Amino acid sequence: MEAEIKTYQEKLEALIKEKTYGQHPENLYEPIRYIMQLGGKRMRPLLALLAYGLYERNPEAVMEPAISLELFHNFTLLHDDIMDEAPLRRGKPTVHEKWNVPIGILSGDVMLVKVYQQLLDHIPAPKLARVLRLFNQCAIEVCEGQQVDMNFESREVVLEEEYLDMIRQKTAVLLGFSLQLGALLANASIPDQQTIYDIGVKAGIGFQLQDDYLDVYADPKKFGKQVGGDIIANKKTFLLIKAMEMAEGPEKKELEYWLRAKDFDKDEKIQAVMHIYDALDVPALAIARMNDYFEQAMNQLTLLKVTPEGRKPLVSFLQYLMDREK
Amino acid sequence: MEAEIKTYQEKLEALIKEKTYGQHPENLYEPIRYIMQLGGKRMRPLLALLAYGLYERNPEAVMEPAISLELFHNFTLLHDDIMDEAPLRRGKPTVHEKWNVPIGILSGDVMLVKVYQQLLDHIPAPKLARVLRLFNQCAIEVCEGQQVDMNFESREVVLEEEYLDMIRQKTAVLLGFSLQLGALLANASIPDQQTIYDIGVKAGIGFQLQDDYLDVYADPKKFGKQVGGDIIANKKTFLLIKAMEMAEGPEKKELEYWLRAKDFDKDEKIQAVMHIYDALDVPALAIARMNDYFEQAMNQLTLLKVTPEGRKPLVSFLQYLMDREK
Repeated sequence: MEAEIKTYQEKLEALIKEKTYGQHPENLYEPIRYIMQLGGKRMRPLLALLAYGLYERNPEAVMEPAISLELFHNFTLLHDDIMDEAPLRRGKPTVHEKWNVPIGILSGDVMLVKVYQQLLDHIPAPKLARVLRLFNQCAIEVCEGQQVDMNFESREVVLEEEYLDMIRQKTAVLLGFSLQLGALLANASIPDQQTIYDIGVKAGIGFQLQDDYLDVYADPKKFGKQVGGDIIANKKTFLLIKAMEMAEGPEKKELEYWLRAKDFDKDEKIQAVMHIYDALDVPALAIARMNDYFEQAMNQLTLLKVTPEGRKPLVSFLQYLMDREK
Repeated sequence: MEAEIKTYQEKLEALIKEKTYGQHPENLYEPIRYIMQLGGKRMRPLLALLAYGLYERNPEAVMEPAISLELFHNFTLLHDDIMDEAPLRRGKPTVHEKWNVPIGILSGDVMLVKVYQQLLDHIPAPKLARVLRLFNQCAIEVCEGQQVDMNFESREVVLEEEYLDMIRQKTAVLLGFSLQLGALLANASIPDQQTIYDIGVKAGIGFQLQDDYLDVYADPKKFGKQVGGDIIANKKTFLLIKAMEMAEGPEKKELEYWLRAKDFDKDEKIQAVMHIYDALDVPALAIARMNDYFEQAMNQLTLLKVTPEGRKPLVSFLQYLMDREK
């Protein structure tokens, strides 16, 4: 499968490189080309291609509509980076840092319009209204998830259930829609479209739990960003939420001390909080929960009306996502 | 016609009041309801209704799709206010002031998605792709116009021609699209749709020139915002561009002095720049240019395949827009 995925990735990359989005004014469109070429796995268009490939030959036929997913994903990154005041994205300056905040806002806005244009230009007419309806629903949930995530920042307690629902909206529904788009374009049955959407959502939740885990426990040499960033920022991740829920006595006091600390040595805080996580077995809990979501996704894959042979590329890709960096 | 317009306005207002856009999280949707209820003439949906009324009875039938125009317009205001760091909108705190910048960005994003949803829910299926294609084109031009306008801030010289093209994109094309949407929904011929789009663009340019004029010469008692705001901010309006182009000798020096002044008495600057405008006859030039655009719009109205009687409501509304505050 790896050769196949690699081929798709290269072709997607080439197609992305071709796109200019517009010409004038230059400083409205250059940020779009910039963020689109910062790289990444192109996971969302890949998922669409692999889902299409379950039912039809030649998944490359849906590369154009699949690019909409990457464009939308990058639009959310661009605006999220402004909201989070993030200086770096994949080790490079974010758009609002390289240009400025107004340009970041406006380039993002035009990107969102371009997502619709890309769908409009490449979805066959009889499927257009349904695709747009599903996409709108997905886009709305992504925005809602981002707002809920921001609201968590000013809350002392976040329930596990609320957290899982937030990551479902912010991260997972777009993976669900990506798979569904591929299946829909390949004329999969409505039940199969619904199942594959659910598979994407389950895998997406697992994927985000893995992100939370890796932010603390990844090999710093292989990890793209600062290990422990979430701990420094008191980000309400699965790990912190479980630790807050489970800690008692002196451990609870110490955790609260670090959450309230204004002036601290970053490495000291990371070490201290990791120590509490480890004592409470929180990382094992995160891995178990993550595996549970991935397993649910894998089990649901068998419900699709496709041959075990046909499922293989998608199964291997999900497996690959699940195993990354561990 | 005034009674008719008033009825439409009231019905649009009632429909806008009904809309909630979404529930959870509250602080994502409350800003949308807030900005949508700050009032205004509801000019864009009104134009759609009046254009529909040229060809069909009961323009109220297209109130729902027409609301998309108001939603899109308010989305642009919301994001523009963040970019311009504007504290007030119609005398009330702007969204990013009342809430904060991240909430302003994200509420705007979800508003733009809701524009597409509103169109999707209320445009008949056979017309959907065409409407979305025209809307996308319009939305892209509005973003381009806003970026060009921001780019003007850091330029010493802006040509009249560049300025007119900027206001065409930033302001006028949405009025063109509003009229075209109404005509299209009423099954007007393609040539009529094109003509009415041009009418909206012409009227829109005239309208913006009038705005530039009123910003300096309006009766302060009747004007919603500070008279002279554009002068204080060195905004490259039609008046300033023409004055820069025409001033010579001591007048040119004085104008340049005020444009460069960092520390100044606001009223003194307004008076001094107005004095230069008056000496150069710039206001008369602006009025002449504005009338020229309005006249072109009015003349093109006669090209539409509708009776002179049928044209009346739209003619009177354009007349009313043209005569406001003078």
